[in-house]
Amino acid sequence: MMQLPVYHVTIEPEWIDFNGHVRDAYYGLAASYAVDGLMDHLGLDAAYRESSHCTLYTLEMHIHFRHEVKASDELKILTSILDVDRKRIHAGFTFACSRLAEPAATADMMLLHVHQGQKPASAALPDAVIEKLNAVKLSPDARDALGPLSRKIELKRR
Amino acid sequence: MMQLPVYHVTIEPEWIDFNGHVRDAYYGLAASYAVDGLMDHLGLDAAYRESSHCTLYTLEMHIHFRHEVKASDELKILTSILDVDRKRIHAGFTFACSRLAEPAATADMMLLHVHQGQKPASAALPDAVIEKLNAVKLSPDARDALGPLSRKIELKRR
Repeated sequence: MMQLPVYHVTIEPEWIDFNGHVRDAYYGLAASYAVDGLMDHLGLDAAYRESSHCTLYTLEMHIHFRHEVKASDELKILTSILDVDRKRIHAGFTFACSRLAEPAATADMMLLHVHQGQKPASAALPDAVIEKLNAVKLSPDARDALGPLSRKIELKRR
Repeated sequence: MMQLPVYHVTIEPEWIDFNGHVRDAYYGLAASYAVDGLMDHLGLDAAYRESSHCTLYTLEMHIHFRHEVKASDELKILTSILDVDRKRIHAGFTFACSRLAEPAATADMMLLHVHQGQKPASAALPDAVIEKLNAVKLSPDARDALGPLSRKIELKRR
């Protein structure tokens, strides 16, 4: 199976908050940068965006924070393709921290292919991109192994 | 009903990405700053954190992106308390953009009260804080009016 690029996160000093760890939102920023890498890998790169006026917009993002990440940690993001249709990509992210046996976090995003004209409108992904995505799309078993991923956030009384 | 503080977002130039709008993750950063304001408002401020060694950790974050936000937009975040128990706060966020009739985005987070010792451990919130939270907690109707909020992210075939 074709391998997706691994994103090596640079933890900036300003990412550390008053709790002494990486602030929640910067996990999202790192995943957002991982999507930039994914776009380049798929051929949805700057040249494509300029010639086609098409790009990806994020519709939804969910992050599960499992462990603190510290300034001194080495952090990388493994990206998975969970699902794809004509216009949308459901991508998963596993945050692997050198210090920890289990993921520091998991995340998933729904991405929409958009044509940016007068008014942005959803547009079909190029066939070649859909082919690449289907070639790396996880099997149901591999998908389950990533964990529960997103869900309705709620307090369940115990 | 006691009013929660409104967070006025400062859109930094580096928040604008190659799509010409605020990058997805910076909606999360703005909401994270809104939580800092909520903590101050509730008395979970720097003095409290220093004396108690307690703080809030984010367990989950979900963002629904509905409209683009541009560099020139005025953006503010309205924070709601959706639910609360002894240790956890379920907070909702509505991103109000001056240019738009409907929210630019909605988000929700599950926050956990944590004692930061050798090893961080969940801890009961102070009674006074729980009282404040219950005083502003949304009614079921007001909660429904915020929209569907978080959910399992998935491609549904049509």
